[in-house]
Amino acid sequence: MDNSQNWRQRLYVIIFETDTKAGQRFDNWLLLCILASLVVVMLDSIERFHSQYAGLFGALEWGFTALFAIEYGLRLYCSPKPLRYAFSFFGLVDLLAVLPAILALLLADAQYLMIVRVIRMIRIFRVLKLRQYLSQANFLLLALRGSQQKIIVFLVSVSTLVTVFGALMYVIEGPAHGFTSIPIGIYWAVVTLTTVGFGDITPHTPLGQMLATLVMITGYSIIAVPTGIFTAELANAMRLEGQFKHDCPGCSKASHEHNAAFCSRCGSALFRQLRD
Amino acid sequence: MDNSQNWRQRLYVIIFETDTKAGQRFDNWLLLCILASLVVVMLDSIERFHSQYAGLFGALEWGFTALFAIEYGLRLYCSPKPLRYAFSFFGLVDLLAVLPAILALLLADAQYLMIVRVIRMIRIFRVLKLRQYLSQANFLLLALRGSQQKIIVFLVSVSTLVTVFGALMYVIEGPAHGFTSIPIGIYWAVVTLTTVGFGDITPHTPLGQMLATLVMITGYSIIAVPTGIFTAELANAMRLEGQFKHDCPGCSKASHEHNAAFCSRCGSALFRQLRD
Amino acid sequence: MDNSQNWRQRLYVIIFETDTKAGQRFDNWLLLCILASLVVVMLDSIERFHSQYAGLFGALEWGFTALFAIEYGLRLYCSPKPLRYAFSFFGLVDLLAVLPAILALLLADAQYLMIVRVIRMIRIFRVLKLRQYLSQANFLLLALRGSQQKIIVFLVSVSTLVTVFGALMYVIEGPAHGFTSIPIGIYWAVVTLTTVGFGDITPHTPLGQMLATLVMITGYSIIAVPTGIFTAELANAMRLEGQFKHDCPGCSKASHEHNAAFCSRCGSALFRQLRD
Amino acid sequence: MDNSQNWRQRLYVIIFETDTKAGQRFDNWLLLCILASLVVVMLDSIERFHSQYAGLFGALEWGFTALFAIEYGLRLYCSPKPLRYAFSFFGLVDLLAVLPAILALLLADAQYLMIVRVIRMIRIFRVLKLRQYLSQANFLLLALRGSQQKIIVFLVSVSTLVTVFGALMYVIEGPAHGFTSIPIGIYWAVVTLTTVGFGDITPHTPLGQMLATLVMITGYSIIAVPTGIFTAELANAMRLEGQFKHDCPGCSKASHEHNAAFCSRCGSALFRQLRD
Repeated sequence: MDNSQNWRQRLYVIIFETDTKAGQRFDNWLLLCILASLVVVMLDSIERFHSQYAGLFGALEWGFTALFAIEYGLRLYCSPKPLRYAFSFFGLVDLLAVLPAILALLLADAQYLMIVRVIRMIRIFRVLKLRQYLSQANFLLLALRGSQQKIIVFLVSVSTLVTVFGALMYVIEGPAHGFTSIPIGIYWAVVTLTTVGFGDITPHTPLGQMLATLVMITGYSIIAVPTGIFTAELANAMRLEGQFKHDCPGCSKASHEHNAAFCSRCGSALFRQLRD
Repeated sequence: MDNSQNWRQRLYVIIFETDTKAGQRFDNWLLLCILASLVVVMLDSIERFHSQYAGLFGALEWGFTALFAIEYGLRLYCSPKPLRYAFSFFGLVDLLAVLPAILALLLADAQYLMIVRVIRMIRIFRVLKLRQYLSQANFLLLALRGSQQKIIVFLVSVSTLVTVFGALMYVIEGPAHGFTSIPIGIYWAVVTLTTVGFGDITPHTPLGQMLATLVMITGYSIIAVPTGIFTAELANAMRLEGQFKHDCPGCSKASHEHNAAFCSRCGSALFRQLRD
Repeated sequence: MDNSQNWRQRLYVIIFETDTKAGQRFDNWLLLCILASLVVVMLDSIERFHSQYAGLFGALEWGFTALFAIEYGLRLYCSPKPLRYAFSFFGLVDLLAVLPAILALLLADAQYLMIVRVIRMIRIFRVLKLRQYLSQANFLLLALRGSQQKIIVFLVSVSTLVTVFGALMYVIEGPAHGFTSIPIGIYWAVVTLTTVGFGDITPHTPLGQMLATLVMITGYSIIAVPTGIFTAELANAMRLEGQFKHDCPGCSKASHEHNAAFCSRCGSALFRQLRD
Repeated sequence: MDNSQNWRQRLYVIIFETDTKAGQRFDNWLLLCILASLVVVMLDSIERFHSQYAGLFGALEWGFTALFAIEYGLRLYCSPKPLRYAFSFFGLVDLLAVLPAILALLLADAQYLMIVRVIRMIRIFRVLKLRQYLSQANFLLLALRGSQQKIIVFLVSVSTLVTVFGALMYVIEGPAHGFTSIPIGIYWAVVTLTTVGFGDITPHTPLGQMLATLVMITGYSIIAVPTGIFTAELANAMRLEGQFKHDCPGCSKASHEHNAAFCSRCGSALFRQLRD
């Protein structure tokens, strides 16, 4: 019993932690397996390879699925709170790596859903110096959250624009020039406004081309809006981040130079012992 | 009489305000109706559905139009100053939701103008926490207004560039390669400068391709201009918000340069220890 | 004699200045003529209109040319220093509005060079409130000049990238897939790197598609560079611009809040009389 | 012996330094040779010219190769530490200008590798005022290094997105609409997400077009991320450059927060009038 407890703990350290050598080696091998299983799914989707090596690929896929299933089982087994792990973000991601193969027994095309294993690539940040990178990702997410409301206002405006432009193009160009319905018109408007421009559907009437010109100029200009919002928010966050947060007892200046002992505005000592 | 007055007031609260539960429920249902009427117009534009369900779609459209007409009438009825509402921004938008259906009796394709109902989606901000979002929209509009002159300078420059490039391409490539007229050349120049690149018209002569290269590099570079203008303006607006709020003891000037130790108007020290 | 002198002066005020009513009216009419002459050139380039109204368009073009020639003559006549005007920026632009028509007598296609008249549209800034807009244009030019060196470094790097990518694609894809020569490869690389993506030439081999993926990701990422350079430069210029430039006699702080009477850093009076 | 030593030194000054007139003239001629050799390679790749002037181009290429080989030899000869030069960045670049021609004797297509000579164009910065430009390039590199971690987070996220979208499109659209394998799906996702939009492969099913819309909106929005990161980093670097340089009378700390009235390290007032 004591021994099994010991084993579970040792396993936990290897599987869940990254500080020990064994833990890092485990993460490296896991990442390699994930990438290998992705490569197999991709190669299998190429007709030329599929017809030649279908059996081999099938075997490999089942091998990887078994491997990931065992890994998932071990994680559940050695985790001190299995349910908490199972419903955590990484727990669900790990489950996603096993599930599609089981679904593939029922659905024909589900085997390609194995590509969701790519999400496990997030583990790459564990192999690199973990904490630094996750803090940077957090940093970007914070900047995005700060500009959330502005972005919603922007997205609603863009949706409205795209719907109006799409309907107008449908009325102007009509099915004869590829605008077979309003949803197709909206699809064209998105293709054009985002400056992607596939060219599968293009305006042919002078009026349609004038409207297209308007859509393109609009798209070219309003890309400034999300960029501006995000940049301003990020610059703001970066300016504050490097600084030392501490209310000055004299003037309540909230942020100071990193390492500051005195307020640069009123000269008050920021800490009591300095004042005596 | 008193009773009808009472009714009008209660109706006003439900229809125009968002603070009460009834008001919010009304807004939710209205938004749902708007979205549903848009979906009907879109589905009707798809040939496959139109041939099968033309009657149903027609009935639904008239139903929605009747609904919006009644809503418009109620708004006019319960508003204390009907004319002021009728000529307000939202009043005109509400009218636009009813008008196209009436126009459709006269014009053949006008039924698709019902898509202008999408503009009513702005009401979505009422359903979400209204004030916050509108203030953010205001914020963006202020930044745009602040950069208005720079943007006009930019747009006039781009128009000039596009016209010159379009005419040159027409002269260089000619009708044989799809550049059938100067306006088409200008359309191509806009497609290229905005980096949309449909590919419906492309240069085929070496000289034309060199000019196209120039247009593309220009377009790729000058996208920095609107982005730069807007970002700088937004950062500026955010910086001003961050000014140091502290009443000057000498002249009670309320906001100061960040980090100010002395009032820039009267020279008083802003903090006691400086004054001694 | 005195009378003719008087006339020249009055003419000068009308033609060159914008403060009087007559001067503004002159500018408005001139702008209208420029736009009308552009429209005529554009319409003439459309085959359908050309075959029907060739005579009318020809007459109109000669009329506009005569008008601009007379205007140019008058400007030379009433300008106090004709040579200085002739070689000024606007003088050369005005000459360009007349020259192409004369060239058109010699060259076949030169008539389309009349489109250079579009450059005269810069006069639009005179009709709007002149000075404000030109100062804004100046502002943008200053920001561009400040980032000139960074932009040259960027453009040389991009040219190098594009040449290398273009040559590699030529070697990989070859003439069979549309990459008929290295210059065409470079043209494709520019089309791809700038995210225009016409699609007239596309990679078909797996290796070519992998390289194309690299080019696209590069192009998508390095657009951040000119944008970042320009934005940072502009934000810097805007921050300094609104401020009051005056070296503080106490601490030599160089820029102060607009309207500042005292330095916000050291509290010194910025002007002598305040100190007494 | 002494004489040869003298010669080597004189040669070193001409070839490696840019301060003397002879050194600048040498750099100018070298740059001209590099550009000329590039033009020859490019022209040779055009079928029309190749069939006519194959002999001439071959001779010129060998001439340039000989020239660069001699130059490389001289650099090795006159450099005081030949090995150090040979393994320096510029030493390897200079070798690359000679190597491909020798490889071309063995491989058929290797002659086009001569295009790597374009990398030598970096020498252009020597011809322009060297130091200024390299410091600017350094500045950009520093900003890039500062945002390195954020960029890795961004690139891993984009790779994940692109793989998932590509696999989904393969499942939805299938080989019938051009999505012949998952790698092709990923290629399409990159083309779309980066807003390049060749249009060689486009979605045809309603579900595929809806997913494409999502990819495009994503691509259009997240371009804000690298731009924001780089701009904020650059603005930060520029702001730090603008810090207030003033030796603190108490502890001689040399740079302070902009607007600082007191030293944040020792609390001394930075200006005399504050001290009284």
